[in-house]
Amino acid sequence: MSSVRIGGSAEDRIRNGARWTRIKRSARLGLLFAAVVEAIIPFAAQSADDLKLPASFRHWYHVNTMIIDKDSPLFEAMGGMHNVYINSTGEAALKKGGPYPDKTVFLVDLHEFTISDGSYVEGPRKVTAVMLKDKKKYAATGGWGFQAWAGGDPSKPLVTDPTKQCFECHQPKKDQDYVYSTYIP
Amino acid sequence: MSSVRIGGSAEDRIRNGARWTRIKRSARLGLLFAAVVEAIIPFAAQSADDLKLPASFRHWYHVNTMIIDKDSPLFEAMGGMHNVYINSTGEAALKKGGPYPDKTVFLVDLHEFTISDGSYVEGPRKVTAVMLKDKKKYAATGGWGFQAWAGGDPSKPLVTDPTKQCFECHQPKKDQDYVYSTYIP
Repeated sequence: MSSVRIGGSAEDRIRNGARWTRIKRSARLGLLFAAVVEAIIPFAAQSADDLKLPASFRHWYHVNTMIIDKDSPLFEAMGGMHNVYINSTGEAALKKGGPYPDKTVFLVDLHEFTISDGSYVEGPRKVTAVMLKDKKKYAATGGWGFQAWAGGDPSKPLVTDPTKQCFECHQPKKDQDYVYSTYIP
Repeated sequence: MSSVRIGGSAEDRIRNGARWTRIKRSARLGLLFAAVVEAIIPFAAQSADDLKLPASFRHWYHVNTMIIDKDSPLFEAMGGMHNVYINSTGEAALKKGGPYPDKTVFLVDLHEFTISDGSYVEGPRKVTAVMLKDKKKYAATGGWGFQAWAGGDPSKPLVTDPTKQCFECHQPKKDQDYVYSTYIP
């Protein structure tokens, strides 16, 4: 049985660094949350605002899952299994394709994965990323605040420049209120 | 951009048929729910008992996701993206690795997926499968009742012989109360 381990810790990813040109390509590839991109940007990370890691997201509505594999140009930046959730505030809007009311939160729980004989199996957490809707507070970034935490650890925020690290890749989805995820019945 | 569509409808799978020897291999590959296997068995399907398709499972706890790709020997039988959920009755037991109390339900929501430049993106539903714990009623199959529905359609049950179609592949996981899924924090 062949077995391949995909990705290391979020910290490894940060050390590896990445090319912004690579991140630019992300838009056309249907990224769910470019917020995760910051996981590889070698900044000294500080929380830029009061965005918090939600404690209960595993009980939220599971929107979809996406895997970014080693064949993707995004692998270095965002490789892994992306489990996407939404809080109850945004559920009705998700089914309509947006726009989303204030206090909507999307969350990506990004995990490593292993491949064994063609089965892609979920592994440990790499990064947890959120986007929180507040039209006034985050007007400069489409009404969304962005943050992410290495390993899902609230003491390890990663986003210091939400415009550059997150919002630039979400701009092409303006017609979906800057959200890549769509409702899958 | 390369794009590959994986899998057809559940009905297509049934027409394709499958080899039981292939299903036998499933145990060592960490299958989550062999119940899904029946989607490819060309029986005239009738619901063998009163197992029902849960209406609200998208609000249940998302246990994990697994993809079975075309490189897997299980692809013909179970190819797709397996989103696994558990009802609230079983959550505490999941975190301990079982055993599970009566009325626990595990559910696999099996979807097609497409691959674009190394990104595996969730598509439409193929099959929804459940296993329901009732130690007395389902004593002959490890205390679990099994059923699945083509396309998630309650009028299209697929399991007619739960021992052969489902339980035989779950037997190797007796030490986890016949459940393949494990808790991923």
